[in-house]
Amino acid sequence: MLKETLLKAWWESWEGTRRGDEEREVEGLREYLTSADRLAVVTGNEDKLRAVNKVLRRFGLPEAEMIRVPTEMADATPCPAIFKAIMGVQVSDADVVIARGRLGVPGSGAMTVFMDARCRLLTAALSPPHVLHEMSVKEAMEREAEEALRRLGMRETTSR
Amino acid sequence: MLKETLLKAWWESWEGTRRGDEEREVEGLREYLTSADRLAVVTGNEDKLRAVNKVLRRFGLPEAEMIRVPTEMADATPCPAIFKAIMGVQVSDADVVIARGRLGVPGSGAMTVFMDARCRLLTAALSPPHVLHEMSVKEAMEREAEEALRRLGMRETTSR
Repeated sequence: MLKETLLKAWWESWEGTRRGDEEREVEGLREYLTSADRLAVVTGNEDKLRAVNKVLRRFGLPEAEMIRVPTEMADATPCPAIFKAIMGVQVSDADVVIARGRLGVPGSGAMTVFMDARCRLLTAALSPPHVLHEMSVKEAMEREAEEALRRLGMRETTSR
Repeated sequence: MLKETLLKAWWESWEGTRRGDEEREVEGLREYLTSADRLAVVTGNEDKLRAVNKVLRRFGLPEAEMIRVPTEMADATPCPAIFKAIMGVQVSDADVVIARGRLGVPGSGAMTVFMDARCRLLTAALSPPHVLHEMSVKEAMEREAEEALRRLGMRETTSR
């Protein structure tokens, strides 16, 4: 499904007829997320995993498992959040990999990324640098995971 | 300056002592942005350029020039917003390149990215897919540019 969407959008871009995201493309992403069997979070921290799972549950998604990797290595890349997710994709069988890392250079704040099993970037959410907000890492990760799902039009199926 | 920040942060990550963004790292990014002589926006659209310049002016930054490239080509990459900025860096002399593009796959919404002359990702801001919000591209770009600056703690020096 996503492969057809991408191909079609590429041809549109190439022909200069692309006019932004279409409703059925966004719907396709929601369907992909809600039909995923295995989700995983790239973290060795039980608190962060729990924070994400709390959000996933509220949106009616299955609980995520943990992918434990030396995520610090992603800090050497231009966009640690994205590369952390790519690391997770490569050492798991998950359909959706969730990772939180630095957006860019030190001081640039954080991003939580949702990626599919082919390293396709599905959605994301940002936070300001930690020193400029009052949230704990757990709170920030929860807020970002929630926003990443909401911005695709996904709705909570159960309350907090 | 950014080169020392990166090196230090990499060693901290490697040694496992990295504890998130530091105040002086964020301050360094603000200084980099406010001392930039040449800013540029990767767009061929005068309206988008004006929208960004309106924001830059409010934050006391110099006006950006236009970088006209076939940005559609970036749509073939996993994160079009970032690669559009990289395209801009490579064909300009700007100290800061601003680009807006798709976050990831079709349907994943948009991101505005601020990048330095060495493709370092300084800050960014996201919008939901266009079909889910009511804003024009111009409004969305203005909002994202503003948020990208604000999230680093930058303040407007003049009012709207």
